[in-house]
Amino acid sequence: MSPLLVKLIPAADLVEESDLAGTTAIVFDILRATSTIVTALACGFRQVYPVISADKAAKLAKNSGFLLAGERGGEKIKGFAHGNSPLEFCSGPIPNRDILVLTTSNGTRAIRQASAAVQVIIGALLNARAVALNVLREGRDLRLVCAGTAGEFSFEDALGAGFVLFEMAKLAGSVPEMDDLAMAAYGLACGYCNDPLAGLVAGQHGKRLLHLGRDEDLRWCAQLNRYHIAPILVSEYIE
Amino acid sequence: MSPLLVKLIPAADLVEESDLAGTTAIVFDILRATSTIVTALACGFRQVYPVISADKAAKLAKNSGFLLAGERGGEKIKGFAHGNSPLEFCSGPIPNRDILVLTTSNGTRAIRQASAAVQVIIGALLNARAVALNVLREGRDLRLVCAGTAGEFSFEDALGAGFVLFEMAKLAGSVPEMDDLAMAAYGLACGYCNDPLAGLVAGQHGKRLLHLGRDEDLRWCAQLNRYHIAPILVSEYIE
Repeated sequence: MSPLLVKLIPAADLVEESDLAGTTAIVFDILRATSTIVTALACGFRQVYPVISADKAAKLAKNSGFLLAGERGGEKIKGFAHGNSPLEFCSGPIPNRDILVLTTSNGTRAIRQASAAVQVIIGALLNARAVALNVLREGRDLRLVCAGTAGEFSFEDALGAGFVLFEMAKLAGSVPEMDDLAMAAYGLACGYCNDPLAGLVAGQHGKRLLHLGRDEDLRWCAQLNRYHIAPILVSEYIE
Repeated sequence: MSPLLVKLIPAADLVEESDLAGTTAIVFDILRATSTIVTALACGFRQVYPVISADKAAKLAKNSGFLLAGERGGEKIKGFAHGNSPLEFCSGPIPNRDILVLTTSNGTRAIRQASAAVQVIIGALLNARAVALNVLREGRDLRLVCAGTAGEFSFEDALGAGFVLFEMAKLAGSVPEMDDLAMAAYGLACGYCNDPLAGLVAGQHGKRLLHLGRDEDLRWCAQLNRYHIAPILVSEYIE
């Protein structure tokens, strides 16, 4: 395995295209966009189409017949079939389980902004080991692109990035070379490895979701390595 | 005790004056400016005068007869009596142990940039508990001003901030209300509380000092709660 250099970008707005050249980027919006995408693909959706603008998402869904989902401020967008809870896509009958059009406050933008990387992978606690395996196999330098919240560091996104590093270290038998923010994320994951849920509610966003009664979502997103898929952005779609 | 709201500012360049209004600011440049200031004051210096520019520091020392110390890039500045190692100020005979003029790459700027706060405290692992006590007694909202390195997050400065939060939590019996970066710093300190030295060499700066043969400095700076002083910026001087 090649030695990897790992850098963590704490918020989507801080991504610089030139910094992504030649790298693999993993995007984390743990609460909840990337957890939802991983869940939807693991539960039978063929592709997820991430869209930054709610209007464009609505138009695309209308013209194509794809299923429309999205949130702003943690709540389902008015007129949309679905919100951004992973639980909406993993159980019960969904008549149109094929392509999901998704727009969220921070996560979909982060995915688009990461697209200058050679490969863009969708990361979550749910698939941390699968992502780690993929990254080690590919051997490129790594950018951990955290969606953050309105341009600021988000605890749970750094924690998600840390869990991928934690799985990489377990698989490779050593830690990769990391910048200080990646090292901090790795340290956090080590601290919460026996109780990822406590980590998800340590940050402001987790506390807010708890306050909104979204404790089932939090428990879902905290499941480490539930799925063995590493979804990848291929042109406009994640699959 | 009043409830406190704690925010962490990851690098001196990101300080916004308006954000400091009405707060207590603690400045951390763990490797090594704030560790050196705490050590010098604990070892008999009456005051430390932090100066951003090396030229101004040299002129001030020349005109006043104060002792001159400073570094750039981790090395003593040419022509200066002392560098920035805390060990230079805690042992051996120093003929002029009164006022120390100090200029460093990141730390002295961070101290100056924090001066819009109601109170500016110099923080280090060496005095984490004393700083925590002071902050709890004062009861103001708190800004953890990390010097960082060239505008970027530094692992060891966040760790130092985390140790003050760790001591605050022990003293108060509960954690204060924190933003996500402060929460991350607290999590790191919890993880390294049994081995602060491992924390100091986890980041890039600690590794570089180790490479420069500065392991004695690292061991010194890693001593949690060695001193019971909380140095404060009073006008131009720290005392």
